Parts: sequence; C-alpha cells; structure tokens
Amino acid sequence: MIYLDNSATTHPFSGVLDTFRQTSERYFANPSSIHPLGGEAERLLEASRERVSSILGGQEGRVIFTSGGTESNNLAIKGTAFMHMSRGKHLITTRVEHPSVLETFESLESFGFEITYVDVDEYGHVAPADVHASIREDTILVSIMSVNNEIGSIQPLKEIGDILRSYPKIYFHVDHVQGQGKIDLSLQEAGVDLCSVSGHKIHGLKGTGVLYKKDNVRLFPLNHGGGQEQGIRAGTENLPGIVAFTKALRMIDEEKLRKKSELMELHDHLYDSLEELNGVVVNSPKHGAFHIINFSMPGYKPEAIIHALAKREVYISTKSACSSKEPDRSAVLEACRAKEEIATSALRISLSYETTKEELDTFLEILKEVRDSLVQISEV
Amino acid sequence: MIYLDNSATTHPFSGVLDTFRQTSERYFANPSSIHPLGGEAERLLEASRERVSSILGGQEGRVIFTSGGTESNNLAIKGTAFMHMSRGKHLITTRVEHPSVLETFESLESFGFEITYVDVDEYGHVAPADVHASIREDTILVSIMSVNNEIGSIQPLKEIGDILRSYPKIYFHVDHVQGQGKIDLSLQEAGVDLCSVSGHKIHGLKGTGVLYKKDNVRLFPLNHGGGQEQGIRAGTENLPGIVAFTKALRMIDEEKLRKKSELMELHDHLYDSLEELNGVVVNSPKHGAFHIINFSMPGYKPEAIIHALAKREVYISTKSACSSKEPDRSAVLEACRAKEEIATSALRISLSYETTKEELDTFLEILKEVRDSLVQISEV
Ligand SMILES: Cc1ncc(COP(=O)(O)O)c(C=O)c1O
Ligand SMILES: Cc1ncc(COP(=O)(O)O)c(C=O)c1O
Repeated sequence: MIYLDNSATTHPFSGVLDTFRQTSERYFANPSSIHPLGGEAERLLEASRERVSSILGGQEGRVIFTSGGTESNNLAIKGTAFMHMSRGKHLITTRVEHPSVLETFESLESFGFEITYVDVDEYGHVAPADVHASIREDTILVSIMSVNNEIGSIQPLKEIGDILRSYPKIYFHVDHVQGQGKIDLSLQEAGVDLCSVSGHKIHGLKGTGVLYKKDNVRLFPLNHGGGQEQGIRAGTENLPGIVAFTKALRMIDEEKLRKKSELMELHDHLYDSLEELNGVVVNSPKHGAFHIINFSMPGYKPEAIIHALAKREVYISTKSACSSKEPDRSAVLEACRAKEEIATSALRISLSYETTKEELDTFLEILKEVRDSLVQISEV
Repeated sequence: MIYLDNSATTHPFSGVLDTFRQTSERYFANPSSIHPLGGEAERLLEASRERVSSILGGQEGRVIFTSGGTESNNLAIKGTAFMHMSRGKHLITTRVEHPSVLETFESLESFGFEITYVDVDEYGHVAPADVHASIREDTILVSIMSVNNEIGSIQPLKEIGDILRSYPKIYFHVDHVQGQGKIDLSLQEAGVDLCSVSGHKIHGLKGTGVLYKKDNVRLFPLNHGGGQEQGIRAGTENLPGIVAFTKALRMIDEEKLRKKSELMELHDHLYDSLEELNGVVVNSPKHGAFHIINFSMPGYKPEAIIHALAKREVYISTKSACSSKEPDRSAVLEACRAKEEIATSALRISLSYETTKEELDTFLEILKEVRDSLVQISEV
C-alpha cells in the first residue's frame, strides 16, 4: 500500500499507541479528584502542558487541550468573538482557510459579526498589505492559516504579525494544523496570540489537539462546566490522549529534524516529475510546504483517478478530506482564480516523513498507466 | 487498592483498550476520504452509530459522537438556545445539575436568555408539577439529569416527559451521564429529545461521548467545519474512540444485566452500615441509584478523611470531581436545604460492578479507624 493522503490523516505512531494504553491503565483517575491518584494524574497533565507549550515555543502563553483542530479553530474564533463583541464585531480571514475556520466565521454572521475575506494570489498567498488594508476600528480578530491544506501555500505570517503589532487589541489566530512538524513557525516572532494544532495530522491520535493561547488573551468557552483547562475548556481531561499528543509532538519534531531535507528532495522530485507529465497541471506553489502537492488533470474525473489508483493500492485524495464528498469543485483553487476545468479536477498528494522515493516513483508509473487507460470526459 | 470513586471516572475495560488499538491501526483513514480506506472507516463509523443508537433505544433519532459528557451537555443546551432563540429565550433546569449544565445555562444569560432553576426536595428530587409551573410561552428547553452525580437521586423523567408532551415545541434534554449502565431509561417513553452520555463513566475512554438527538431536532453547532456528524459536530471523527465507546456501552449493558441485583445488595449493605455508624449522616436517598452514596461527617474536614483513607489505599471523593478543588461546600446539598455542617462535610462513595462486599467491609472498618484517629474540627 502506498498511502499519500497524509494531510487527511496519518497513521498513529506505534509509540504513541503504547503511551496511550500505558497512561489509560496507569493514570486513569480524574485529575480533578483530590485523592493522590487524582493528584498524580493532575501532575502528569500539567507536565504535558508544559512540554507541549515549550515545544510550540510560545513563551508568553500555554496550551489548552482540545478534541482536535476543528475545535481549536472554533474555540479561538468564536471564543474571541463572543468574549470581545462589545469592543467590535469585525473579523478578518482569508478566502483559502479550512472549512473549520470559514464555516465558523460564517456562523458568526447570524450574531451580527462582519467578516472580511482577504483575497489571495494564484498560489493562494495573501498579501500582508491586503490584511493591513482591511483592518477597521472595530476589528477584533485576524485568523490566517500557516499552510494551506489543499495546495500547501505558506502564508507570510511574520510580516502579517509585524503589521498587527501596531494593533495590540486585535488578536492574531493561526491555524497551524497543516504546518506543525513541517514548517518552522515562531509564535513569538510572528506575534501569534492563538494557534491551533491537531494530533491526528502528526501521527498522534484522533480526538486530540491543542489551542495555544497567550496568557493575556481571554476567550468565551465553547464548553462550560467544571472549570478544567483554566476554565476555558471544561470536561474531564482526556489525559491518555493528552500524553499521547505530547509524545506525537515530540516524535514529529525529531522526525522533522532528521528528515526534513530528505522530504524536501522528495517533494522537488515529485513536483518536477508531475510537471513533466502529459495532461497534468501542478497547482501548488513551487516553494510551498514539502508535504503537499496539488495537481489537476483537466478532462478527467478526479474520483475516477482516485478509484483507479486505489485498485492498485495507491491512496490520494481530492482537495481536503473534510469536504471531499461535496462536488469536486475546489473553493481554494477558485480563490486562486484557477480555470473551471482546473478547479474541478484537482487531486492532492500528501507525504509523510515515512514516504520513500520508491513509493513516489511507483505512484508516478501507476498514474501514467491510469491516465492512459481512462477515458477523458471530453471524449465521451 | 479499593477504588470507590467511580462516579468521577472509571478505569477503562481492557477489551475497550484492545478495540481502540486495533481500530487505530486497522482503520486509521479519514472517514471523509473518498478512497476505499476512507469508505471502510466511514462504514465502521455508521455501524457504530447504529449500534449505539439502538442500545440507547431512541427509535426516532440517532447519536452524534462528541468528546464527552460536558460537550454533549453544552451542545444540547447552547445548540438549542442559539438555534431557536428567535422563538423564545426562556430555559428551565434544576438547582442540582452538574456544572457542565449549570455553567452552560449561566453563560447564556449574557446572550439575553432567562433561566428558571426548579427547586428540589431534601433528597434532590424535582417535582414534575414544579417543572410544569415554570413553563412559559417563550420556553424552548427543559434540561434535567437522570441521576444526580453527588447524591444519586433519580429524577422522575417519565412524569416530566408526560407533561412536556403537551408542549411539542419545548425540547427535553436529559443529562444521563451518571445513569447510563446503571438505571433504566426509555428515551421513547420519557419523550426525550436530547440525551448526553459519557464514555469514561462506563469504563470507556476519556474524550468520548455521545449526544442522542431526535431526527427532527435542529441544533446550532458548537464546532463548525467540514460537515461531519450531520453537520452538527464538525471535526475529523475520532473513529477509534467511537468504536471503543460502542464497545464500552455494550459491555456495561451486559454487566448491568448480570450484576445489577448484586450491586443493589452492596448498595443497601453500605447504606445501612453507614447509617449505623456513629458520627455519620447519610445524605443520599435510600432509593437512589445503586452506585452513589453520599454522607457527611459533621465536624470533620472532608479532605482530612480522604487523605487518611488514601494512605490506606482507599479512594473516595468529596462531591463531584469536577468541582472538588473548590471549597468543600456542596451546592447540591445546599439546594437540598442541608444544614451548613452537612453541606460542608460531604463525602461520596461511588461503586462499579466490580466492587465487592469485602472491599466495602474493609472500607467501613478503615473509615471507623480514621474517624477515631482524626481530631474533630470542633475539638481544635
Ligand atoms: C488546515 C486545517 N485546519 C483544520 C483542520 C481540522 O482539524 P481536525 O481534523 O483535527 O478537526 C484540518 C484538517 O482537516 C486542516 O487541514
Ligand atoms: C451528571 C454529569 N454530567 C456531566 C458530566 C461531565 O461529563 P465528562 O466528564 O465526560 O465531561 C459528569 C461527569 O463529571 C456528570 O457526573
């Protein structure tokens, strides 16, 4: 099997699963219980929080453990909106965010919020000046992703952060779900107030994630209750999941250190090979994240290609998994002003640090065979 | 070790942990991916949903998978409030709900909602007539727990449901987190629209839970995004957690069938023995849930007793874990109009189907020794 859908989800590291089981058995008590079993669990929880916060590198804040990237994004955005709406009801984001950001903003319109969607260039990049120009008196939040999940564009977060430094009352949220473990992001340098990371994209467990939050940032909780997670995210803590997340974060960081240049070479090899392939148009920027390459094969139905590849045990996807059961039009590519035939025939390959050159070459071979065997829509 | 804090959390069944690992390894793909690995994962997800829905027995609805009881309660309450606020902004609950219900209602006050908190009797029971009397033209939701987490009172849900049947526009939510696997509840007979269950209270995994929802009930999502869970709870599904939850639910149901009468005997034995103990006042109703017994030892500091018991490897708690790090006053016992000295010295024993008579007798022996060795506050 050649699994090239790592941006949809990754398989969990075996060590992560071990950690999960051990923690489930050894530290099953409720961290809020005041007996010593609860105390042990609580210490492990706080040690995990310290560890994760320090790996993410935000020195002025700490993480809140959540159930995943979607919850982290919702908490950051709705949490800011509902907490600070008396100060202003204008929010800024881009046209190429993940649905868990875009739909969240849209849902706030029914509460009277106004959203500005900043445009992007043909490779999905926002211009810092455009972000600047959209700031208003009543702006309370700017939310911009680090790495686009469909085409891999990397946003100029540091430059945007530099601009936002002159607006200390505007919070800066970054959806770093596709970036963590792949690109460098200094929360400090980019002046990030809130940052979302998801466990299952870094070989951790589904149902785990964090929202990094600067200490001075106040959020309206999505989940009220027993006061856990500094009162911002109530609910009995998923301690085994949290410890497993911590382990995954450490492991992916080590992988990045050891294998990033290797992944870069694989990326470039794949990028160049696809560009040379007849009938293929590469949509990703040449200098995007190393693990995502998006391409279109105009005239072919993307599902037909995916199923033909899957018969040969090669797994890739259309756009992002989250919306891939909707018709095959990519809103991201549309925002990049791609032609209709490109935006409706997009495919995404996403690599992991375990991907090998042999796998990619086999994939390329099979893709050629599939292309030659499939009838183009236009020929029907 | 004698673990008598099962209402705070339970240890996960070994079979549940096996299921989790197997699912994590075998079905790691994203259920939204359109390739066959995604398709397999999606089928497993929907099979789990069918299974859980059928065990819970709501024939007119299905479950939404969540991250736990707190999220289920928040989703039911805020989801109803935000979706139907144009129809009315009055909500009804009781004074003895879990913080994940009470704090959620309180948070809605800042959005202009009005809440009626129905009073309870000395054992924490609401009177259906009181619920009836608090209904207004603009009431949109009644939320009442099945089993109280501090003292084990069982609420007359069927009678309340009968009343609510005449008000088809008022949703009926039940926090069944402490009741699942312990008491019988027919969602059908009680006319329940929304029902919360948590995994870690039934020997499942932390970070898992469900909200049962009748099909015709519309909710405003807490987590917007990729359209998962019928669009009501976005985020990549925690499939291994979901399958593990399904397993735990099946297992606790079997335990209940096999061992409920045994647990009832243990409960009565413990209840009677505590009532006979000098210096002990039992706060739980005699005919409450079989797994929770709350008692006070006026004049003793509850933490002192907990720590003395813990030194002998016996683990019990003060009130509910979720709030047990706050000062030791029990809001539930206060709502029951318990005297100050009772409300500030409450302890909770919570059993599981694994608890044995020997454990309880050892506990009772040790409790007597602890009582005799500790200095009463009044003597200081
Ligand atoms: C950029 C981005 N943000 C957020 C998410 C949502 O994260 P999760 O799947 O953990 O809910 C995803 C994954 O689908 C993503 O790619
Ligand atoms: C009655 C009741 N409701 C809700 C909850 C919250 O559930 P969870 O711990 O899964 O967030 C609890 C547990 O603390 C509870 O006892």
